[in-house]
Amino acid sequence: MTVSDRWLLPDGVEDLLPPTALRIEALRRELLDSWQRWGYQLISPPMIEYLESLLTGTGNDLDLQTFKLTDQLTGRLMGVRADMTPQAARIDAHGLQSKGVTRLCYAGHVLHTRPLSLTGGRAPLQVGCELFGSSALAADEEIVVLMLEALAVAGVARVHLDLAHVVIYQELVAAAGLSDKKQKAVFDAVRRKSVPELHELLGNQPAGSAGAQLLALAPLVGGREVLAQASEILGTASERIKKALGDLEYVADRVSARFPDVSLGFDFCELRGYNYHTGLVFAAFGAGGEQALAQGGRYDAIGEDFGRGRPATGFSADLRRLTLLADSSDVVDHRAIYAPAVDDPDLQRRVSELRRCETVIQALPDEDSHRARSQCDRQLVQRDGKWHIEALNAQ
Amino acid sequence: MTVSDRWLLPDGVEDLLPPTALRIEALRRELLDSWQRWGYQLISPPMIEYLESLLTGTGNDLDLQTFKLTDQLTGRLMGVRADMTPQAARIDAHGLQSKGVTRLCYAGHVLHTRPLSLTGGRAPLQVGCELFGSSALAADEEIVVLMLEALAVAGVARVHLDLAHVVIYQELVAAAGLSDKKQKAVFDAVRRKSVPELHELLGNQPAGSAGAQLLALAPLVGGREVLAQASEILGTASERIKKALGDLEYVADRVSARFPDVSLGFDFCELRGYNYHTGLVFAAFGAGGEQALAQGGRYDAIGEDFGRGRPATGFSADLRRLTLLADSSDVVDHRAIYAPAVDDPDLQRRVSELRRCETVIQALPDEDSHRARSQCDRQLVQRDGKWHIEALNAQ
Repeated sequence: MTVSDRWLLPDGVEDLLPPTALRIEALRRELLDSWQRWGYQLISPPMIEYLESLLTGTGNDLDLQTFKLTDQLTGRLMGVRADMTPQAARIDAHGLQSKGVTRLCYAGHVLHTRPLSLTGGRAPLQVGCELFGSSALAADEEIVVLMLEALAVAGVARVHLDLAHVVIYQELVAAAGLSDKKQKAVFDAVRRKSVPELHELLGNQPAGSAGAQLLALAPLVGGREVLAQASEILGTASERIKKALGDLEYVADRVSARFPDVSLGFDFCELRGYNYHTGLVFAAFGAGGEQALAQGGRYDAIGEDFGRGRPATGFSADLRRLTLLADSSDVVDHRAIYAPAVDDPDLQRRVSELRRCETVIQALPDEDSHRARSQCDRQLVQRDGKWHIEALNAQ
Repeated sequence: MTVSDRWLLPDGVEDLLPPTALRIEALRRELLDSWQRWGYQLISPPMIEYLESLLTGTGNDLDLQTFKLTDQLTGRLMGVRADMTPQAARIDAHGLQSKGVTRLCYAGHVLHTRPLSLTGGRAPLQVGCELFGSSALAADEEIVVLMLEALAVAGVARVHLDLAHVVIYQELVAAAGLSDKKQKAVFDAVRRKSVPELHELLGNQPAGSAGAQLLALAPLVGGREVLAQASEILGTASERIKKALGDLEYVADRVSARFPDVSLGFDFCELRGYNYHTGLVFAAFGAGGEQALAQGGRYDAIGEDFGRGRPATGFSADLRRLTLLADSSDVVDHRAIYAPAVDDPDLQRRVSELRRCETVIQALPDEDSHRARSQCDRQLVQRDGKWHIEALNAQ
């Protein structure tokens, strides 16, 4: 590696420089403060854990996304977290052990071995909320509302919300009685929304059977109008599936009432994410965005692996993407006062006082004072033995 | 791994739970805000980089502390940062390329393969300030002042500041003309402050020689009184050594004037840290602490490896330790308003309004309302068709 490329960063990894880093910090604070006001308590789980803890109940996708490290103290395998949701579930199950409803929020870096999308990064700054201990639809609604409010705070315009329910797919596959091998092939095909492949796999199922319903449902994606179509297709389906459809409609109604400007979409075979979801799932998109800006859903099972199963739902987003995609019109303020490199106790006192609420850049003796002044809009000047603040003309 | 130990975390790695996580967040904001007011701009370098970038100019210690990962996209070796100072130097050298003085600050997690001390952690939350482009002693002073102010903000009582200067040791070793092997042995002995070993290694050096001076100087540790003793021992030393001694005294005087309560100590053969320091170095301790709470120093060389050498000085601290060791008397406020699980648009509007500046915990339909109320000091109650706030008696 030569001097000239020692500064190169790996693909999908980047420096956040001023003023971007400060914009991200500002949004971070605004979101954490607003979640605090909903009763969500801040947690900060560690960057690394033993692999078994990190991947418990989360499935193969997260495993592939997780960087592995050897613990030099024990020789055991550790992982760098690729998702903070399972950490929150572990903390709810073991660290807090509250019997009531527990609301947690967090903001922290995660690492992915590979970018989730062609344009995505490998080091998202994950922020999110998790709600444990309630199976109520009101809990799902609370999380969806929090997610949409976060996008509003970030200034994301023209938000689209996709709603789905994993029970529909799970029940249909179970009812279709497919072989393990065929199940896996169907899963892959649905995930890639490959309808021809699904036809090949399920085309010979009798009309009205679970397999035929799955085949009819998989390509059904759209706005409110497809809810009725799905209801028709699933006319003979199980009660669990009907309840799932009802849940989707209920949450859609509630969200529309609170966020009339958010467009809604439905996808009855959504298989996004890390396979730990068990109920209503959702993802929010900005204008023209193909990759979700924020996503989440119900995952009632994870805690069990830590010895305590609890109902759970939550959402998360990449704060970096939220900030960069949002409207950046409110540029960071560059108001600052220049103080000369003069060694005078009076000046020192004055500078200390001003720094209680102002930015004061005191020049160093070997600093180019013209350059230092160019970062400031005012300066401290000594007149009649006193230090006065004067406007600095743009230079 | 059984269910019962799946929640175990590796040694030196821990969850930060409420309310500790919130106390750390509060201190994080207070420090970053105060550094902003000194003109330090926030940067956020990535958790991982190619190993060559991460370790450039930093020496073997940091290498051993750094977790290694393989980049699946390129097969190249990456490292998880164990220190953010070299990242700041890279950003100054390459990312910003300002010709004037550059002041940067940061807050982020770093990982260490092993704890730095028996009681230390492996996942510090590093916060710090770095100042590039000034060789002036006023720059060293500014950084020491910022470090001591940070400890004051954190509420650390009875602070002790150790000052040292790496040039003294470096010049004496060079002047002593030791073999490479002997140099390494001396370095190890000085680092462990093993005087008997040093006597064995340097005991036969003629009086007044650099070797003899090193031998006399190594055990000399103490307050202001040892400055004069060091001056005497180094009477015949080089101009660079005398300047280093003078610099130590100057900064000590300035710091004493601003922080009369901070006790001072001097160590003329300090070899702490990652070997990249080139001038005045310092470390601050709390009452009874053996491990430094914050440390830093001048490192004028690092940027060169990225194609641009700049004078530099800075300090950093582990925000987690700062928060946990500081006085925790100001317990986090638990003021919150309870709202019942009632589906009423009036209540919803009221809750949204209140959440602009209050915490409102709205119960979920399946939530134990007694337990939810116990987290609140007030509640929303409906009377005469309106929602009123009432005090909740402690339960």
